[in-house]
Amino acid sequence: MNRMSDNLDQLCVNTIRTLSIDAVQKAKCGHPGMPMGMADAAYVLWTKFLRHNPKDPEWFDRDRFILSAGHGSMLLYSLLYLTGYDLTLEDLKNFRQWGSKTPGHPEYRLTAGVETTTGPLGQGLANGVGMAMVEAHLAERFNKPDHIVIDHYTYGIVSDGDLMEGISHEAASLAGHLKLGKIVYLYDDNNISIEGNTDLAFTEDVVKRFEAYGWHTQRIDGHNREEITKAITEARNVVDKPSIIACRTHIGYGSPHKQDKASSHGAALGEDEVALTKEALNWDPNKFFYVPDEVKSFFEEAVPRGREWQSEWRMSIENYRNVYSDDAKKFDQYLNKNLPDGWEQNLPVFKQSDSGMATRKASGSVLNAIADAIPNLIGGSADLSPSTKTILENAPSFSETKYNGRNFHFGVREHAMTAALNGMVMHGGVIPYGGTFLIFSDYSRPAIRLAALSKINPIFVFTHDSIGLGEDGPTHQPIEHLMALRAIPGVTVMRPADANEVTYAWKYALEHKGGPTALIFTRQNVPVYERNEKNHAKNVEKGAYILIDSEKDTPDVILMGTGSEVQIAVETREILAEKGIDARVVSMPSWEIFNAQDKEYRDLVLPPNVKARVSVEAGSPQGWEKWVGCDGRILGINRFGASAPYKKIYQEFGLTAEHMADAALSCIKTEGAAKTS
Amino acid sequence: MNRMSDNLDQLCVNTIRTLSIDAVQKAKCGHPGMPMGMADAAYVLWTKFLRHNPKDPEWFDRDRFILSAGHGSMLLYSLLYLTGYDLTLEDLKNFRQWGSKTPGHPEYRLTAGVETTTGPLGQGLANGVGMAMVEAHLAERFNKPDHIVIDHYTYGIVSDGDLMEGISHEAASLAGHLKLGKIVYLYDDNNISIEGNTDLAFTEDVVKRFEAYGWHTQRIDGHNREEITKAITEARNVVDKPSIIACRTHIGYGSPHKQDKASSHGAALGEDEVALTKEALNWDPNKFFYVPDEVKSFFEEAVPRGREWQSEWRMSIENYRNVYSDDAKKFDQYLNKNLPDGWEQNLPVFKQSDSGMATRKASGSVLNAIADAIPNLIGGSADLSPSTKTILENAPSFSETKYNGRNFHFGVREHAMTAALNGMVMHGGVIPYGGTFLIFSDYSRPAIRLAALSKINPIFVFTHDSIGLGEDGPTHQPIEHLMALRAIPGVTVMRPADANEVTYAWKYALEHKGGPTALIFTRQNVPVYERNEKNHAKNVEKGAYILIDSEKDTPDVILMGTGSEVQIAVETREILAEKGIDARVVSMPSWEIFNAQDKEYRDLVLPPNVKARVSVEAGSPQGWEKWVGCDGRILGINRFGASAPYKKIYQEFGLTAEHMADAALSCIKTEGAAKTS
Repeated sequence: MNRMSDNLDQLCVNTIRTLSIDAVQKAKCGHPGMPMGMADAAYVLWTKFLRHNPKDPEWFDRDRFILSAGHGSMLLYSLLYLTGYDLTLEDLKNFRQWGSKTPGHPEYRLTAGVETTTGPLGQGLANGVGMAMVEAHLAERFNKPDHIVIDHYTYGIVSDGDLMEGISHEAASLAGHLKLGKIVYLYDDNNISIEGNTDLAFTEDVVKRFEAYGWHTQRIDGHNREEITKAITEARNVVDKPSIIACRTHIGYGSPHKQDKASSHGAALGEDEVALTKEALNWDPNKFFYVPDEVKSFFEEAVPRGREWQSEWRMSIENYRNVYSDDAKKFDQYLNKNLPDGWEQNLPVFKQSDSGMATRKASGSVLNAIADAIPNLIGGSADLSPSTKTILENAPSFSETKYNGRNFHFGVREHAMTAALNGMVMHGGVIPYGGTFLIFSDYSRPAIRLAALSKINPIFVFTHDSIGLGEDGPTHQPIEHLMALRAIPGVTVMRPADANEVTYAWKYALEHKGGPTALIFTRQNVPVYERNEKNHAKNVEKGAYILIDSEKDTPDVILMGTGSEVQIAVETREILAEKGIDARVVSMPSWEIFNAQDKEYRDLVLPPNVKARVSVEAGSPQGWEKWVGCDGRILGINRFGASAPYKKIYQEFGLTAEHMADAALSCIKTEGAAKTS
Repeated sequence: MNRMSDNLDQLCVNTIRTLSIDAVQKAKCGHPGMPMGMADAAYVLWTKFLRHNPKDPEWFDRDRFILSAGHGSMLLYSLLYLTGYDLTLEDLKNFRQWGSKTPGHPEYRLTAGVETTTGPLGQGLANGVGMAMVEAHLAERFNKPDHIVIDHYTYGIVSDGDLMEGISHEAASLAGHLKLGKIVYLYDDNNISIEGNTDLAFTEDVVKRFEAYGWHTQRIDGHNREEITKAITEARNVVDKPSIIACRTHIGYGSPHKQDKASSHGAALGEDEVALTKEALNWDPNKFFYVPDEVKSFFEEAVPRGREWQSEWRMSIENYRNVYSDDAKKFDQYLNKNLPDGWEQNLPVFKQSDSGMATRKASGSVLNAIADAIPNLIGGSADLSPSTKTILENAPSFSETKYNGRNFHFGVREHAMTAALNGMVMHGGVIPYGGTFLIFSDYSRPAIRLAALSKINPIFVFTHDSIGLGEDGPTHQPIEHLMALRAIPGVTVMRPADANEVTYAWKYALEHKGGPTALIFTRQNVPVYERNEKNHAKNVEKGAYILIDSEKDTPDVILMGTGSEVQIAVETREILAEKGIDARVVSMPSWEIFNAQDKEYRDLVLPPNVKARVSVEAGSPQGWEKWVGCDGRILGINRFGASAPYKKIYQEFGLTAEHMADAALSCIKTEGAAKTS
């Protein structure tokens, strides 16, 4: 251990350490070891490099700081408090308590200055890649040789755990490929994870691995503040490669019995050890949550400095506005959180057609129809764009030589793509979407969940949405995926039934705030239905609506479905009509949206007195009881798919109009029986 | 392109190519490019190195071959057919058709000789790591210097797509750490993925990356069969490092217009191009599914060769049996698919206790109680064993110096852990389990799904199963995860209510065949309930049962719950009793198992005439309608969790006995109203 000096730097670093120790001890749980180990590196970064304005955490051109190792949240909270963000000492004392601004792991925007939600490992690292992609995109789009309006770094702290997770590979490989030079990550190389020394499971040569990805790498002593300063300076200067600095640190630094031990990772040190640690750090063991005046003063220099940086930036924007007024208007539009006026004018209307169109294809048409009107709509696919139809045809690819491209090639990296999309939204300035097959939503679920938890609105395009993809077979046919996505709080799942529903699903997704939207599209053709004012596809925005009504006011039976199975309901209606049964067909593209309508509307679509109801969806039946009720029938799939031409599979699985008609008849009978009993 | 020679090797390789081309063309869909490109390498591997017996695909000491790039299934099917497995030319002609043995992607055991289900990228690569772990484990456990009974390689073909996926990083880093020298992977380095050249997204130095993981690496011309032979020989000889051989190949090899193009990857070549390709390969374009006699004869030498290998092995086992009879008995026991007689004798019985015990802790006790009786029960955790309680206390760690260890350290690699567990089961000889927090089941869903699809039975231990984990907050609190797991066909989810239910959940999981079991455990203490013959915890094996019955034959209301929330139901019963309401408490540890009981039993537990029902589970309410019916009430969570002491969260979320009692009263009232209306 270094001999403790009483200089201001050391005092500042130990303030971070002791605040973290005290907060964890007070909560009686948490993760003190990481803040203690990374206090030196974080201190140097935050006081010598990070360009930010604590009084305006949303200043657009600020440097981003990501604590990918989110369990070390007290490190971040300490820094936010000390540098003058909207966080008090009282907040630190409320660490991990109900309703506090200081939850166990950092949550995006719950706490001013928290740039992303972290804790599940690897996510922050990949969010940062998305942020840096947007920074590069906007810089190339707007900067002029003599007028720089976008110029900031993405800093982060990543841990052994982050680097063991697969998503770190995907994201780092992508960042290296794209030469995102303004990423600077500090790797907390402390040789300890929860089960013990990293020798137990993790002996790869991390630095060499990142070199293989095309990163600039350094190894330093993470407690030597001069080395840290030099390394960050060098990393910033390397502009054509992302940088990682392996900081050899001691977890639980300063704790006589727990330094360099897994025991300092995820539990309070204990009162005795807290006292001993403070003594070792030359700190008064009787003081808790103690911030020396000179420390507070020094850190708070961040406030005037931040104000100055931001006002310089405002001035440069004003200059830019004078010289490049068209670009400046565009710039404002990019930064505006609302869509440009009139963007929806080019939304396509598709003609009725029995042979129809795959909804993925309709999605491609919609995207391309609106691409000009929404220039900051950008996106791509996890190496499936020819299939997901997510290409903007008149735009170039985003690449290491063309950062203003709008088509992103994420590679076969669904997880990093999704986390990068999250980072792109959190960065701001763009409206990002990303596509893959619905089956591979499984590969990216942790990031989908974090989008919902963070209340941000990336758009996920999931195609090849059922057994309807046919011959690729059960490994590629989603069964449980719709339900599994619907189960995540805050995710809006939309599975449009035809091309015109696709148009309004996209409209909804683009206008929706407060959570991600998952757009679910078919591989195979589905009919384009006839529309009139009553069954207009804009009803998609209500989640469910009457696509074809019964002749009578009160239908004999309600047939409901989503996506490609709506056509089965439509055919069933015809079969039933021949038997004198009068059915209503309800298209239900989104459970979440329908559920949020008022009762009056819901009862209009699904009148409570009509108990005979049949649903059809080519997926898990779990939960359809909610809509069909006790007397209803559910047509779904309770097994894995099969490899065969898709019509054959529908037939074999009983997802047919004949079968649905039988189900309708049987539930009309049951209901009748119930009525007369 | 090489000048086509007419030697037998070339003829064999082109037979693989043309069979693949023809099958894809006949199906009018599929992936011809990869089989055409990797035919040389696969041919060399299968004819010069792979020790297998086509007439006994389950010969235990065979080399394993994994086609991680499962879309190239026709490569595998061609080889299986040619070398004499139970697959006919007719089967190849039925490629991708309903009920065929040749689905779009290889499915475990559906086709003789298919060692694992692949298609979702990266999975096979990680399955192979699990297989090699078991091979090393059994070899160290059973081999004697003079008697080798386990000695086989794990070969595989991996693609660019496999290596872009995060799981490839996790698995390869783990394999390198563990020095699994008997892995030999051929990397199809063809520079093409679906969107085009890999330059678009994937320019990392793969070879350097694998060196960083501690692998032995080589780069060769993937069409030069001498180089391939030399490289595999060398890879086999390096025994202390896994090996990867980067084979530079041409996707769609031989196709005049599609070689080296993405267009050869995922679509039939088209009739004209098929003819042109055959001409280029010096093949009769008018012959389809053509296998020259000398080719068939040559490949079928695998049959007698395989029989001989296997009979040599049988002899060595017999010798072993004579010299090491105790070990041989153990060996037989390991290979037996049933548990050893009397294994359940040590299953613990936990005493009634109000203060109770966390179910994760009970799980640790159960595991350790049976560890001696089931010596091939092995497992570990994704760097969370102190929390998941998955350590076998009297066993060493599995490590690169101690392959006979039983405690596996998978690192923070949930996805690779799960896929490795799958590989361990598919290898055979062991009963593997793996633990992590329930929230991180999301990181491994693709592999969980494949376990279910493959009908194999790894045991997943998911602890910290709800808001009950408290302060770590919403990033770590599962909400949707129970439902999302239940939605996967073939996964048995078990969430025991107390320590004694844990015992029987483990018993069920160990005895269950045909699919994985997910055991869901609490972090926090829950009561240990009083038991008698009637409410014996063995009822867990029926999925749901009456924990505390009503006084009357027909209860006024049924209170049901799972896991830690059963205690809320129990408390609710007491509150209701004070109000003169007579409730039954049903513990429902497994929906899937209960659903599979006969109607009589289900109606006994949930009598159809009792409409007043309330469920409680600290998770998504989606689907509980199935059990509570139309007049019931569901207590669940429709939002993300929160960071606070757990009892506070339960309170704030309304998951309390008071609230459940209110719900019970309101639904008794509704039901009464319904009855009298």
